[in-house]
Amino acid sequence: MALEDILAERPAERPGIATAVSTLKQIFGDRAVTGEDVRRAHAHTTTYIPNQAPDVVVFAETEAEVQKVVTICAEHDTPIIAFGTGSSLEGHINAPQGGVSLDLSRMDKVLAVNAEDLDCTVEAGVTREALNAHLRDTGLFFPIDPGANASLGGMAATRASGTNAVRYGTMRDNVIGVTAVMADGRIIRTARRAKKTSAGYDLTRLLVGSEGTLGIITKINLKLYGIPEAILSGVCPFPSVETACNTVIQTVQSGIPVARIELLDAASMEAANAYAKLDLAATPSLFVEFHGSPSGVAEQAEMFGILAEENGGGPLEASQRTEERAKLWKARHDMYWATVQLRPGCRAIATDVCVPVSRLAECIRETQADLDENGLIGPIIGHVGDGNFHVTLLLDMEDEREIEAAEGFMARLAERAVAMDGTCTGEHGVGQGKRRYLNAELGDAVDVMRTIKRALDPQDILNPGKIFML
Amino acid sequence: MALEDILAERPAERPGIATAVSTLKQIFGDRAVTGEDVRRAHAHTTTYIPNQAPDVVVFAETEAEVQKVVTICAEHDTPIIAFGTGSSLEGHINAPQGGVSLDLSRMDKVLAVNAEDLDCTVEAGVTREALNAHLRDTGLFFPIDPGANASLGGMAATRASGTNAVRYGTMRDNVIGVTAVMADGRIIRTARRAKKTSAGYDLTRLLVGSEGTLGIITKINLKLYGIPEAILSGVCPFPSVETACNTVIQTVQSGIPVARIELLDAASMEAANAYAKLDLAATPSLFVEFHGSPSGVAEQAEMFGILAEENGGGPLEASQRTEERAKLWKARHDMYWATVQLRPGCRAIATDVCVPVSRLAECIRETQADLDENGLIGPIIGHVGDGNFHVTLLLDMEDEREIEAAEGFMARLAERAVAMDGTCTGEHGVGQGKRRYLNAELGDAVDVMRTIKRALDPQDILNPGKIFML
Repeated sequence: MALEDILAERPAERPGIATAVSTLKQIFGDRAVTGEDVRRAHAHTTTYIPNQAPDVVVFAETEAEVQKVVTICAEHDTPIIAFGTGSSLEGHINAPQGGVSLDLSRMDKVLAVNAEDLDCTVEAGVTREALNAHLRDTGLFFPIDPGANASLGGMAATRASGTNAVRYGTMRDNVIGVTAVMADGRIIRTARRAKKTSAGYDLTRLLVGSEGTLGIITKINLKLYGIPEAILSGVCPFPSVETACNTVIQTVQSGIPVARIELLDAASMEAANAYAKLDLAATPSLFVEFHGSPSGVAEQAEMFGILAEENGGGPLEASQRTEERAKLWKARHDMYWATVQLRPGCRAIATDVCVPVSRLAECIRETQADLDENGLIGPIIGHVGDGNFHVTLLLDMEDEREIEAAEGFMARLAERAVAMDGTCTGEHGVGQGKRRYLNAELGDAVDVMRTIKRALDPQDILNPGKIFML
Repeated sequence: MALEDILAERPAERPGIATAVSTLKQIFGDRAVTGEDVRRAHAHTTTYIPNQAPDVVVFAETEAEVQKVVTICAEHDTPIIAFGTGSSLEGHINAPQGGVSLDLSRMDKVLAVNAEDLDCTVEAGVTREALNAHLRDTGLFFPIDPGANASLGGMAATRASGTNAVRYGTMRDNVIGVTAVMADGRIIRTARRAKKTSAGYDLTRLLVGSEGTLGIITKINLKLYGIPEAILSGVCPFPSVETACNTVIQTVQSGIPVARIELLDAASMEAANAYAKLDLAATPSLFVEFHGSPSGVAEQAEMFGILAEENGGGPLEASQRTEERAKLWKARHDMYWATVQLRPGCRAIATDVCVPVSRLAECIRETQADLDENGLIGPIIGHVGDGNFHVTLLLDMEDEREIEAAEGFMARLAERAVAMDGTCTGEHGVGQGKRRYLNAELGDAVDVMRTIKRALDPQDILNPGKIFML
């Protein structure tokens, strides 16, 4: 596949790697691992991009150790790829030029919870579920939920998002500041804990989404939210994707502060029914959730129900009961596995785009037609309140024609989103997989990114080959 | 005052300026103005920083003209200071190294309103009031309100904020993307119109708040909001700043989506009473506003009222009537003038800091004690939902001891905020006035900013001497 051509671009060797590895082994002992299984497990393991293993995996336990690794790697011109849980989808953790995978999962301390300020500070390896477990008795929670139980460092580095971004924003909106080790070994803290600041360049937002190419995030100061007094979730069927999308537009426009609004197309509903043993109508449906006071969520659900009905959809089947809500969202979260079951033995390739919500129905319709024309199976689910949707292609990796068709489809999907003034990647990041679409979307802005990268990491040691080639 | 020492740091002359000016005069004719009045009006005119006029003011009408000016200035190593309405407070538009003030106020077209997507695209010179007037019939509005009728380009460049940031965020949160002319003359668009994206570095957020030092913003794509169905505003007195602050903390923590929550200390309330002919209790008070459905705002106000009462405050006097609301917020917006009236003939110096909200009462109390100890008059008002407050010092500019005392006070205020894990500038930016506090707050991160600046503007022609010295 064309992707392999891109991955084959391996620039000049880095002769210092061997020395870096032996130095790291001396210093870190059995926390510097060179066994193949561990190395391969620290490279790209999800979906379809080939696994490009690092030369060594170092398990760091402190910020000072991260700094030590960076300093040694800088001295020996050796790549460093920060690793959280490995749940990214576009090859972010591959090591195309070899080097060190720096596993931060042991940096797993919640350092502070400032309940009065609705914020907390965590080490990079804390996962979102671990944080929410830690917060259990405080009445607070951290909302960003990309599906996987990712590390918060990884979520910050990839600007993660997910089902409730429509209400709570993405990692862009929920990181107050980070501490990061830069390529020259300096440790910087990008912002203090004030809720807002106008003190110079927004280095926080520059590091959030930089995919480990500008600095290695070691600590994150995050916003927290009070657990809503009442939560109401439900499913609402529609006669078509179009009527569902129109309801989404009107919901957002009416200012209904919906916390989640997820589209599942007919194929996805079938998959969900089969996998989660549900008995829902196999038509395009919206999974919705409302947060607020008991009367507030009832009012929101009622307003949403009226809009759905006006668009020919409904009725909204909703519940405030914890078990029913949990069952519903488990079905949504398990969609990856449910989808894979549609075609046993297949490989699932998840891709995502995001368009202005006014273009969403059109974009999904054209995308479904494209799938049909090319004989591809690709159920669609989406965080449609943001105009963001995913296609999960189910591929027989032995069938070259099918893979070629999938490659063409993904390129057209990216082009289609960009032509509609959207983005080739709503929340999956660029990594290696979407590098080839970035220029069409952002033109010279990509060169400005390169200039920044060159200035902050002139040796290109921090996650080289991601986002763009230098 | 010590400030003058800083302003005196005028680096090496720029011998190319004269050629740039004559070239610009040839090209722009009577839109390149060298008369002293116009030049002085385009340098710092608000508050206390000395006026450092540019050599010429060019009135650009198109993006291509902005590019032309930048290209000419790059060729002749000539500074360019982008100018919107001149309402910034920290010397952002001064020309300490001479050069060109690039007035963008004639780039005043609203280019697109995408009602379904809740966004719009404007030229940099459109003011926030002009945008809201343009939106009048759409049911939409743009909420960010820094007080002055600033240009949206200037607001983006300085990451402006204001009274309703607690609900709607700052310019950081409300700019979807910008088009900017970079120092090398390239025009980049930082993002397309999708509500979210993970396509590489967040250049949007890098330019927002860069104060014209990294690029000149020519177009801005902004979020819009539906005008709330119901708006309820009111005033609530408290026995002390502390009890008011505790009510703020509890309001935010309870998840009441307050749209505005402004603290006025006793001195400010006296000023407001005198200036706006109000008859409010001259004790610390919160001005609040709630947005939502009619039942929603009533519920929010009731919850707030209960919290206020529990803290010994109240009663909340609130109204949904447009005239009463307008009268209240006019009094708040006129606070600068009301404050100045407290001491006729004085010069007002507005400064601001922002701290974690848990430290707010303590920070304000220490600040009031500092004012008292040093015999300074400085009413305090604040966007306290964000932990942000302003002190407006009223100074006799002829009295050197008073000015010295004010200098010392401002330095201590910045230090105090930073010591409380806050920022020396919540929303006024850095400009020239706060440059000296930045290192204490951000340490090596300031050097990282410098590295980015050097990479993107190696000649230091874009607003030199602002945020930091290169």
